[in-house]
Amino acid sequence: HDIQGVDAFAFADAWRAQYQPAMEACREGRRPFTRLDVLHRENLETVLAAFKVPIADISEQALERLNRVWHRLDPWQDASAGLYRLKQQFIIATASNGNIAIMVGLAKHGDLPWDAILGAEVTRAYKPLPQAYTQMAAILGLERREICMVAAHNDDLHAARAQGLGTAFVVRPMEFGAQQTTDLTPTQQWDFIANDFLDLAQQVGC
Amino acid sequence: HDIQGVDAFAFADAWRAQYQPAMEACREGRRPFTRLDVLHRENLETVLAAFKVPIADISEQALERLNRVWHRLDPWQDASAGLYRLKQQFIIATASNGNIAIMVGLAKHGDLPWDAILGAEVTRAYKPLPQAYTQMAAILGLERREICMVAAHNDDLHAARAQGLGTAFVVRPMEFGAQQTTDLTPTQQWDFIANDFLDLAQQVGC
Repeated sequence: HDIQGVDAFAFADAWRAQYQPAMEACREGRRPFTRLDVLHRENLETVLAAFKVPIADISEQALERLNRVWHRLDPWQDASAGLYRLKQQFIIATASNGNIAIMVGLAKHGDLPWDAILGAEVTRAYKPLPQAYTQMAAILGLERREICMVAAHNDDLHAARAQGLGTAFVVRPMEFGAQQTTDLTPTQQWDFIANDFLDLAQQVGC
Repeated sequence: HDIQGVDAFAFADAWRAQYQPAMEACREGRRPFTRLDVLHRENLETVLAAFKVPIADISEQALERLNRVWHRLDPWQDASAGLYRLKQQFIIATASNGNIAIMVGLAKHGDLPWDAILGAEVTRAYKPLPQAYTQMAAILGLERREICMVAAHNDDLHAARAQGLGTAFVVRPMEFGAQQTTDLTPTQQWDFIANDFLDLAQQVGC
């Protein structure tokens, strides 16, 4: 939009910084469960205002297209091939706080062949609430120990392990860019620790 | 189980006959939404009793394996290939009254590459309740007219059209066996009328 004085990286970081507080309102029951596309849109308008961008100058269509950028994120290079390998022997399902439409968008954009889209919109609970993990086992008709949570975030794995799920840490050292300081190493001895999805597939015998 | 005096076809039909009444209790609010695997299990025990089969003689493992026969149904011969073609240009999602675990089982068993599993467990409503259709559009972030309900059952399409969805009838003249008398022809001029999924794919340009 050629808006003067807005640094795109600072804008993206500011937008992302609203993600956890917005979900927290749902987790704490201050508002009913609300899907992430809606929270993203509210947060986008908040951040536009904080950056002194006149929202009225931007068409609804452009705002909505920007809001759905989360549906078009490029996957890590190993993700699609790794998922295809894992899928041969396991049920692979998303356990994201992103809503179903985001996950479908990512699947189509990046050829991610999930067997099921679970996560917040299906369980009606944002991680790390316990029911976000336990409901997935109930939905799949599996014991919790039969499920392995795969994540790049140690706190996600802490919460999953607390509910009896298996855990796999896949390091993503560039998720927050070259200056990333968190989640560069495992903080516990997780059941699997992998460099990427191909490494994980190999470790589990796929 | 080599049980004397039980005709397998009669047993299957009797089990299936309990399907609609069980869901009706949820539709009418006489009980909270309950996933189909649970209803199937209750119905199985009802029908075993009606056939005078002593349930105590059957192991829990065998009962549960039988209950999950609905996870292992063979697809129609055209289904997998047709879905792969449709998937190239469209989001393909289930809109079944079956719960997520059933759909995942069918997908793995029959190579059915759905992009998303929607339907009753996600919308918390059994078709033909209106919200079973309208919630799917909200979940996908699409206008109702952008969605096409594909079904072998005219009443499913009636309910979908009443909510503004597109409609495609795919005839399955053997669904209830060679003596089938219902759903052999379309009862309205649906948007698409197809002989199988490959025919449907061709009609929509895939």
